[in-house]
Order: sequence, then structure tokens, then C-alpha cells
Amino acid sequence: MRFEVITLFPEMIQNYCSFSIMKRAVETGVVSINTVNPRDYTLDKHKKVDDTPYGGGAGMVLMAQPYVDAYESIERINNSVTVMLSPQGRPLNDSLVNDLSGYDQIIMMCGHYEGFDERIRDIIKPLEISIGDFVLTGGELPALCLIDAVSRKLDGTLGKIESADEDSFSNGLIEYPHYTKPREYRGIKVPEVLLNGNHKEIEKFRFEQSIQRTKLKRPDLYEKYMKNQ
Amino acid sequence: MRFEVITLFPEMIQNYCSFSIMKRAVETGVVSINTVNPRDYTLDKHKKVDDTPYGGGAGMVLMAQPYVDAYESIERINNSVTVMLSPQGRPLNDSLVNDLSGYDQIIMMCGHYEGFDERIRDIIKPLEISIGDFVLTGGELPALCLIDAVSRKLDGTLGKIESADEDSFSNGLIEYPHYTKPREYRGIKVPEVLLNGNHKEIEKFRFEQSIQRTKLKRPDLYEKYMKNQ
Repeated sequence: MRFEVITLFPEMIQNYCSFSIMKRAVETGVVSINTVNPRDYTLDKHKKVDDTPYGGGAGMVLMAQPYVDAYESIERINNSVTVMLSPQGRPLNDSLVNDLSGYDQIIMMCGHYEGFDERIRDIIKPLEISIGDFVLTGGELPALCLIDAVSRKLDGTLGKIESADEDSFSNGLIEYPHYTKPREYRGIKVPEVLLNGNHKEIEKFRFEQSIQRTKLKRPDLYEKYMKNQ
Repeated sequence: MRFEVITLFPEMIQNYCSFSIMKRAVETGVVSINTVNPRDYTLDKHKKVDDTPYGGGAGMVLMAQPYVDAYESIERINNSVTVMLSPQGRPLNDSLVNDLSGYDQIIMMCGHYEGFDERIRDIIKPLEISIGDFVLTGGELPALCLIDAVSRKLDGTLGKIESADEDSFSNGLIEYPHYTKPREYRGIKVPEVLLNGNHKEIEKFRFEQSIQRTKLKRPDLYEKYMKNQ
């Protein structure tokens, strides 16, 4: 998978990808992370990438020319998709993550400051994706969420491929509770069933816990799950 | 605002906060960002923070002792809230961001790998917050989303306080389109109304655009907005 990120803050992207599981995914060649900075595509000597909005108002707007030129500098391969991270987009969820993991190249457009000159949308026509109904300073964190979530789905990123299959949402439910050593901590014991080695009982316990938690914490998911049974 | 982040990857947090608007918020003293690493609270010489799950299964589980001890090392001030970033939590949205911005200290618990030993939840009883129905390698990106979104709401973080008031969702609608120089780019012109200096007409145009976009891109938000009129 080739991730290409158009951003004014390439260090934010590269730094996150130099730790933990993303670091390994890069080192083993499962993914590559490339960044393109619109500031390198400005035509004036001050390397200006934003300007005040027509019609007035607070904040600065990203100019079309450096951004579109940065986008067009990226070598497109087959099976590529272009995504704009924006609060106006389609909400990112596990099913969309699965869809995206089927591409070979994901080009991500990060905004910063007040937003994009609308003509950037008009020309590039990206798929707009949002990570939630809240506003961030830039698209870098949403891009990293997308990179991380998609990378987990790719063969070779996680130590064992099963880790992702048992995650929350992969079966439409919230994950069951986990316990590790010691058997007792501050008076709270690990449930007996997890210690007896009866795999059928363990599976049943975990499934029931998943159902109970989903019902309690996310009634919307529970309702959807029950409908599909 | 004091942000305290419990994380195995403090560099991920500190790095993001050394750029752009977060950097300024830290430098001007509007926020402080402190990190605590459970690895510094382990009792064994290998500094082990995770172990295999009781009952079997893939992935590693964060052990209770180093995590709870790390948590308890944080100096609590009045008006403090503890948040666990988890896919099981209440979805983060603009209204929750507003609520959180009223605290003076937000302690954030980041997981990593498969998840937390359940007894960490039992003992600390955090408010669980999710940034969406997808799974990430750790809670660091969600914690950064929360830090960024909350910081934007605090006086002094943005250049002009109005910038946040006009963001998407602040009035329940998606933001109107922005345009900056030049007046024409690749044949696409800035809408005439934004150039004529009539502020009443500009306001009307922007409001209508907000309504249209919300209706088109987020019919759920549009319906909610119309009900409240």
C-alpha cells in the first residue's frame, strides 16, 4: 500500500510512522508513506500557501495553485483513491476502512487553518472522509488515523493476522474484556472461566460479554447487530 | 488547561504538540502537555508492561499495576476529568469537546496493543471516549484529536476567537465554501457575491451554502438542525 499525504506538516506524519506498529509496517515494506508539501509548489518567493478569504471572515484559506500542483506531482498508480480529510466527509468506520484497504494507493489531502479554497475540491474531486463531528486544526491527525486503521488490515502489519479479526466492530460488536497476570490485583480476580482451559466455555463467556457491553455502551450498534441475526 | 497523557509513546504526543497551533498554545501557556509512561512504573527489571491474555487469544494485554501506578502518580487538581480513549466509548463530538473544555485538567489514558486489563477500568473508572467506529493501534491519535479539538475552544489558542465560532458544527451545520486569491483559477471564478462587499448578502449566501451542503452531505445533521428551528 502506498500512502501519499499532501500536508504542510510532513514531520507530523513521518514522526508518527516512526514508532510501534507503523514503523514495522514501513520497515517490512507492507506500506510506504510519502509526503508532499504544497509549500514546495508555490510560485512566489515568500512560499505563501494561504491568504485571507474573499467576502471577509476570520482565518486563512489554503490557496488552490500550490495545493493542486502538489497533488498533480504525485505519481498515480492503478487502483488509487484520493481522499480529503474534512469534517464534511463521510464518517470513517470499520467497513470504510476495509474498503480502503483494497486499494494500492491512497492519496490523502490534509487541510490546515480555516480550510481549502473551494476550487481545490472542484478540480480534484476527492472522496471526503471525516473522523467525527468535531473540528481539528488540520487534516494530519485524521490522515494518521486512516493510515493506522487501514494498515492494521493489511497482511503482515500485525504480528498475527487474528489480532485484527477479534477487534471491536469486526463482528459488529464491542470487544470482550481482557485480563492478564496476576490472577488477583487489588482484590479483583480474573474471572474463573478464563483460567480453566475450557475453550468452548471461554468463547461463550467472551461472546456474552461482548453482547452485554455493546447493549450497555453502544445501544445503536446492539440494535443493528440484533437486526442482522 | 493541563493535559496529562498516560502513554507508552510519549514522543508521539510531544512531537505533535511541537508544531503549528498546539506549539503556540503551549508557548503562550494556554495549555500544558504532560506525559506519564507506565514503563517507568514497572516493578520488574525487564520493564514489562504487557502480557498474554488469560483464556488465550492473539495480542498482548496492558498489565494493571504499571498502568494504575502511573495514573496515581499524576497530581490531581480541582475540576479534573479522566478519559480513556477506547472504541467502546461515547463518540467524541463538538458538544462533548465543549464540555471537556470547561475542565482545568484532562487526564487521558491511552491503550496500545490488544487493550487494557479490565481491572484498570474497574479501578480508575474513567469516562470512555471514542473518536469513531474503527480500530487503531493505540489511544495516542485519539488523545491528540481530543487535545487539538479542546485547545481550539480555549481563549488564546487561535489568532482570533471568531475562527472557532464559525467552524463546522458550531451552529449544527457544515461550513460554507471558502475562496481566496486569485479571482479566477483554471477557469473557475470566485462567486460574484463575495467580491461586492455587501456583508448582508455575503452572510445570506454563506448561510444558504451551509444549509445546502449539510442537506447534501450530512442529511442526519440537516434533519436535526431543522427540528431545532
